[in-house]
Formats: sequence, C-alpha cells, structure tokens
Amino acid sequence: MKKYTIEFCDYKYDYIYSKGPSLIIKDYLSEIDKLIMISDSGVPKEILEIYSSFLMGIRETEIVIFPEGEVNKSLLTVANLCEELIEIGADRRTAIVAVGGGLVGNVAGMVAALLYRGIPLIHIPTTLMAASDSVLSLKQAVNLQHGKNLVGTFYKPSLVYVDSLLLVDQDPRSIRNAIFELVKNALAIIPEDIRVLSNLLNSTNRYSSNQLESLIDYCIKAKSKVMKFDAYEQKDGVVLEYGHTIGHAIELAAEGRLMHGESVAFGMLVAARVSYHLGFLKGEDLITHNKMINLIGYDNKDHPTLSEVENSIKYLKNDNKKGYVSSSQNEIGLVLLERLGEVKKKGSSFITNVSLELIVDEMIKIIKQEEVLI
Amino acid sequence: MKKYTIEFCDYKYDYIYSKGPSLIIKDYLSEIDKLIMISDSGVPKEILEIYSSFLMGIRETEIVIFPEGEVNKSLLTVANLCEELIEIGADRRTAIVAVGGGLVGNVAGMVAALLYRGIPLIHIPTTLMAASDSVLSLKQAVNLQHGKNLVGTFYKPSLVYVDSLLLVDQDPRSIRNAIFELVKNALAIIPEDIRVLSNLLNSTNRYSSNQLESLIDYCIKAKSKVMKFDAYEQKDGVVLEYGHTIGHAIELAAEGRLMHGESVAFGMLVAARVSYHLGFLKGEDLITHNKMINLIGYDNKDHPTLSEVENSIKYLKNDNKKGYVSSSQNEIGLVLLERLGEVKKKGSSFITNVSLELIVDEMIKIIKQEEVLI
Repeated sequence: MKKYTIEFCDYKYDYIYSKGPSLIIKDYLSEIDKLIMISDSGVPKEILEIYSSFLMGIRETEIVIFPEGEVNKSLLTVANLCEELIEIGADRRTAIVAVGGGLVGNVAGMVAALLYRGIPLIHIPTTLMAASDSVLSLKQAVNLQHGKNLVGTFYKPSLVYVDSLLLVDQDPRSIRNAIFELVKNALAIIPEDIRVLSNLLNSTNRYSSNQLESLIDYCIKAKSKVMKFDAYEQKDGVVLEYGHTIGHAIELAAEGRLMHGESVAFGMLVAARVSYHLGFLKGEDLITHNKMINLIGYDNKDHPTLSEVENSIKYLKNDNKKGYVSSSQNEIGLVLLERLGEVKKKGSSFITNVSLELIVDEMIKIIKQEEVLI
Repeated sequence: MKKYTIEFCDYKYDYIYSKGPSLIIKDYLSEIDKLIMISDSGVPKEILEIYSSFLMGIRETEIVIFPEGEVNKSLLTVANLCEELIEIGADRRTAIVAVGGGLVGNVAGMVAALLYRGIPLIHIPTTLMAASDSVLSLKQAVNLQHGKNLVGTFYKPSLVYVDSLLLVDQDPRSIRNAIFELVKNALAIIPEDIRVLSNLLNSTNRYSSNQLESLIDYCIKAKSKVMKFDAYEQKDGVVLEYGHTIGHAIELAAEGRLMHGESVAFGMLVAARVSYHLGFLKGEDLITHNKMINLIGYDNKDHPTLSEVENSIKYLKNDNKKGYVSSSQNEIGLVLLERLGEVKKKGSSFITNVSLELIVDEMIKIIKQEEVLI
C-alpha cells in the first residue's frame, strides 16, 4: 500500500494505492452512517460485487446504478440521482462512493457536490483513465447538448482509493486511452521524464499492477506540479488542457467511435503542427512530440474521418475555454507548446488565439498525411 | 449611495444601495464583454425596461426570461438556461445579471455557478426579501421533487446592487414577507436591536426607501455577525435557519398559499413553543418573541390549515438539515432558542433533535389557539 496526500492549494485529500479492498477506507468514515455506491451499467459485475460486499461489511450501503453512455452524463441524470438518493435515505451523514470510470466519477461527483450543497465523496476508480486523470482534479462536470463538460463545479473528494488489481484487466485500448493523457503530461509538463517514460511504455499497452502504479506516479507528479498553486486549473493548470480543445470537439463529432485519449492524441498532433506552422515549436521538438504519441501505438488508423473533422467545427466554436481571452468569431483559443514542457504564453495567458481555418487545414493535412515530419 | 463590503470568511463582495440605476456598476465590468440579464415572468415590466436599457447602454446585453413559479426553481430550468445562454453566445467573459426576487437570484446564481464552472454574477434584487436575505448569502439552490433547496452550491456574486426605489412599490404583504426574516434575525442574532426595531416597524408594512435601507442595514449587521467566520452557514450560521425547518415544510405543504416569510413566522412560533415546552425558553422571552412577530401584522388568519400541517410532515422528514446530527426516524433537527439571541446548543451543534409528535402537537395547538401565552 502507498499513500499520497494530494495538495491543490488549500485543498488536500489522500490518494491510496492498494491491491484489493482494504479496511483503511474505514478511517475516512468516522462521521458517516451510510454509504451510497454509485456506478454505471458499464462497470464489470465482478468489480461491483467485490466492492458492494466489502462496503456493506463496513457500513450500511445502498447501490445505485445508472445507464452507461456519454448521453447520460447530464444534469438530468444528476437530478434523477439526487431524487433517488433522498428516496433511499441520503442525508448529511451519507458518503457517496463512486465506483467506475471517469464518467461515473464526474456524475457522482456532481451529485456529491450539489446534494445538500455537498456531502462526502470517495472515488474508487476502476479504469486507468479515471485513476490517473479525472480523480486528480477538483473539476466535476456534465455535458450540455452544446458540448462536453460545459456545466460543473469544483469539489474535493474525501479519499481516492485505487485498487490497482482492478486496472490490470482493462483492455489494451482503454489502457492506451489513459496513457495518451500521461503522454500529454510528459510533453507539456515533465519533459525531463520523457526518456524514462519511453522505456516504460510499450505499444501492446499491457502492464502489471506495479507498472500501472508507476505510470500513475508520473501523473500525480505532473498534476501536482501545476495544480499546487492553481487548484481551479485556470492559470498554470490550463496546460493540462493541451490537446483538449480540438480533442473534445473531435470526440463529440466522432459520436463514440473514438475514445477521449485518442481524440486528445489527435488534438496534440494538430496543436503541435499549428505551433510549428506559426513558428513557435521547433522541428526537432515536433518530431520527439509525435514519436512519443506513436510509441504507444497511435497510427493513421486512429485519425478521425474528414466528415468527423467537419462536424467538429461547431463544437470547437463552443469550447468551454472560450472567453478566457477575447477572441473573434473565427478564432479558437488553443494551448500551444513553444518547447516541450513550455506553453506559449501571451502576457499571463496560456491561450493562443488561432484561426479556425488554420486548425481545420492542419487537421486535414494530418489525415491526408501531407507534409508529415515523421 | 452607500457601499458595504460584505465579508464572509475569505469571500468578499460589494453591496451597494442607490436610488435608480448608477454607472458605478461599470466599475465591476472591467473583464466583461457581454451581459446576460436573467429574470422571470413575475418581475414587473417597468423594472425590466429600466434595467435592460440601462445595461444595454454600458455593454452588449441579452435578456432571458424564464416562467415564474416555484415549480421552475429546478435543475431542469438551470439546464435549459445554460443551453440557452450558450446559444446566445455566453462565454467566460460574460456576466450574468440577475434582476428579480429570491427565486431569480437562486436560479441565475446556479447558472452562474455551474456554467463553465463559474462565470461572474451581479444581483439586482427587486424585492425586499431578495435584497435583505438571499443576496446576503453564498448559498444557491434549487428544489427537488422531495423538497426545497435540496440541491445547490456556494457561490459569491461580484456585486449586489440594490435600487431602493424598486423596493418601495412592493405590495405590503411582500414587504412583510421579508420583514419576518428581519424579525428572525433580531430574535435570534441581534436581540439588542429589538427595541429600536419595534419603533421602526409597523403593521401597515409601508416604508420609504430610506426606511427600507435602514431595515436592510440590520440584516447586513446580523448576517455579517454570524457569517464572518462561517461563510457556509454550517456552524454558527445555522442560526439563520431559525424557524426554517418547519417554515419550509409548511411553505411546501401550502403549495403557494403562504409566502416564505409567513411560513417561517409560523415556524418560529412553533419552535419557540417547543423550546418553552422543553424548558429552554422562559415565558417572558416567549412573550417578547411572539409580540415581535405580531407587531408586523401576523395574526391567526396567517396560520396554515390543519391539512397543510398534515401534508408538511413528509417534507419535515426530508429537511435539508437532516444528518447534521444523528437522528432517529421520528426526530426532526430544529434550531431552538434558549434565550433571545442565544441558540440552544448541544456540544458544538446548533441543532436540537425534537420528536415529530411534539412538533405536530404544538402546531395544532397554535392553530386551535390553545394555551397561547399572548
């Protein structure tokens, strides 16, 4: 077992790795009479069984499962869950235990943040993506019809408990999905670790539980570095959004065909080319950048289609970073790198306004494999 | 013009009184490109006209009106407004201007808190209740089917701007509605001001704009006193909920027949009798307590009906303070006074568990006017 204390400004919470359920969770329940475990229908049954019986052994526990799928990451689901939780007796001495991937963590996180204006929240992430990315943030959000994560709030969990045995069995594509975010962190925040990470990563995307814990260590390191002084991810923390403006738009346009990390990987490829085109990023950095993405098995088959690119434009225009800086109708604010580990800044802003035309142009060139450096 | 800086722990915001619109609002818009004024259909047209044209004169402004009524104080309304705001171009450089009563302030407050995880919020309260109560709090909330204000968050406005000329024309019943909250503050927090307030208050509930400003002064004094060290109203600030557990339940059961303040007044009458019955509150304090409520014209006609009392029981059981302290199925946590200005405490808790039976019994006695001390 290994314990970190995550510190994002004044917000602190414990992050524990373990193999299998551990009674240490009880240490976090001194003021809690009742647990409500929230999951979605996509979480493997064995995991639900292990953790529901474990939780029932330590407190009165109710289980609530909502239907899986991005369409259910909505305020409507949050409202329905809040009604259901009150129905089954949730009060201020109830803790929510989110058992699942990032979507479960976000929906349950919104419920915990809003019900009675906030009740305790414990995350037991069941995917590498959730463990290494979404629970290392105070951000909670759900989607609107206009786009992803457009409504949300900031809320601190009481505990993150990662059972690394649960993560080993994930399919390689899902593992890779998470590792794209790790690669993003390496490229944008901890370039000093690119070499050692390159040795650890592989294109089969199969890892032991110890290896997975090591990979998460790097994510904790990178996230803590930028969020120690920016818990709300609105200043230095905006760097975490590298690749995400385009990534989110592509992910929505692909309607589930591409995973989040795959879309972000494409977003990074585009952002790097845009930066190179604008004269910020040097050719050799662009090559290292793209190699790192290819290292874990990203190739041309992973690109969005031309019609997905076309559909992504309306989402790009409504990205939730819009308005961080003043921009005109045909400009999109992107996080760009000017060197590996160094974001192009304008004054105190980490956002560079880029013409929509240039972005779309670079997307198409990548898909058509024109002028590719690697 | 008069300016306060409200300080609730680390949260600070300005609270300005003025007569008519003032360009001082511009001082709060240095990083704002666009305003979206949110109101409901119950706000008088003249007020909407005055403020929409005023705002349009200082920034690009869009107007969004949602249908009035408690049924629309919901997460569904919040979700729909968020979609609409994005449709009309809201981004992170947009400020929401809530023009209306407490319901508008809360719904617009939720939208401001959640959209893009928080955009600036300016309150222009158009009722004495909103000006003297809801905008002097960080609490935002909407209702669930299970009860009032069960989902919400804490969010600080950038500015509260009170145009006291807008408040003068409110009907006396609405003025009285707000003054019940003021009376609650006097009884529970600033008993030293009861005498001077008794001279200022009257049973016609008509006041000049200067008098209204004086009344708000007392609310700012009382709220600041308890919230200076308890911005989240979960420790000392729970005293602000005096009369509210029963009040909220009665208000819901009366389905709009009774106003919030009237329901809280009844809640205070019941809480005082319960406290007297349990041997906490002395007879002379009970008399002063009830006289203060009667002073502004509360009489037997204002009581809920017996069937409203019966219907209130299910809401009492789901009060959003449930779980602050451990309680059994048939106990309700109430804020009780043991002296005027002094809450009955148990350890560090401001909540006393009272049997539902005793509460219902006292409600019925008041309605049937049995054993009434005054």
